[in-house]
Amino acid sequence: MGSAIFQHIKKFIDWGVDDQEILTPFLQPLSVKKKGFLLEQGQICRANYFVVKGCLRLYFIDIKGAEQTIQFVIENWWITDLTSFLFQEQSEFYIQAAEATEVIAIENHRYDEMFQKLPKLERYFRLILQKNHQASQRRIKFLYSQTAEERYRNFNHLFPEFVQRVPQYMLASYLGFTPEFLSKIRAKK
Amino acid sequence: MGSAIFQHIKKFIDWGVDDQEILTPFLQPLSVKKKGFLLEQGQICRANYFVVKGCLRLYFIDIKGAEQTIQFVIENWWITDLTSFLFQEQSEFYIQAAEATEVIAIENHRYDEMFQKLPKLERYFRLILQKNHQASQRRIKFLYSQTAEERYRNFNHLFPEFVQRVPQYMLASYLGFTPEFLSKIRAKK
Repeated sequence: MGSAIFQHIKKFIDWGVDDQEILTPFLQPLSVKKKGFLLEQGQICRANYFVVKGCLRLYFIDIKGAEQTIQFVIENWWITDLTSFLFQEQSEFYIQAAEATEVIAIENHRYDEMFQKLPKLERYFRLILQKNHQASQRRIKFLYSQTAEERYRNFNHLFPEFVQRVPQYMLASYLGFTPEFLSKIRAKK
Repeated sequence: MGSAIFQHIKKFIDWGVDDQEILTPFLQPLSVKKKGFLLEQGQICRANYFVVKGCLRLYFIDIKGAEQTIQFVIENWWITDLTSFLFQEQSEFYIQAAEATEVIAIENHRYDEMFQKLPKLERYFRLILQKNHQASQRRIKFLYSQTAEERYRNFNHLFPEFVQRVPQYMLASYLGFTPEFLSKIRAKK
């Protein structure tokens, strides 16, 4: 069941069959339909999710009622609302499937126990969080630095496959403009 | 020399005198004058920096020539340009001291060796990066969600001491508006 996650862990740390056996009971496979939710505003985020297949997004609804997408994840990425997950507080976010998605969940109430039983996962998650934090630094710069059109061109250049995969209105909210504006930019090409 | 860092590590993991002895050769204390730089655009970010005393900021210069502050750190926080630090690429950022600042640097070329010699630091840095990533998620939401005035009021409410400490023009660039606008908001109080 956890083969995608095991393959991923092996890329980062020394990992054997014994380790798999210890980790397996902590892994919970879940399917989410397209547009289904793993988390909704006001709920407590109960797990850290690894994407086996599909695409998820983390978003919130702003004061004007518009969806603002903070993060997209596809295969081999982790996603959670860290504040809600770590402190078991009500979330301000939604985690929604942009396509039919298969995930593996590791629940909060077993998270510490997992690290106690498998301390070598500290290194794996340290490296994953390093990648996440690196992506966030670039994302924050990106939000500040470019015009809407530059953001779209840059994103399209970096992740062409992704731009094909995600509904336009979600992509527009990630890039910080309206779907109408995105259509206009695309028409210009 | 490393007492501030040892105290900080102790808050997160089991840590003894033996561990301190192993870690000490990896730690390089540095002083930076107010407005001095640990990193400038085009350089390679050579270290991960722990703030013992003072305040640093990570910023870049946007296409219009304006400084955009991505992150501030004070005592007991780590800062680096992760992309440049990890891949030893030229940085797009500056790391500058907002006050006279004392840091402890851990250099890139010894980073892996440090984790090999002290695997328990994997857990410490996993927890630190979790905090960083959590802060980034909130920061991205913050950049999207509020008006300039709301951002200032919110920031002032969360970090009143910090608002006193940092020059107005730096704070304005962090909050995403001009120093003139910040003066206006402050005058309204």
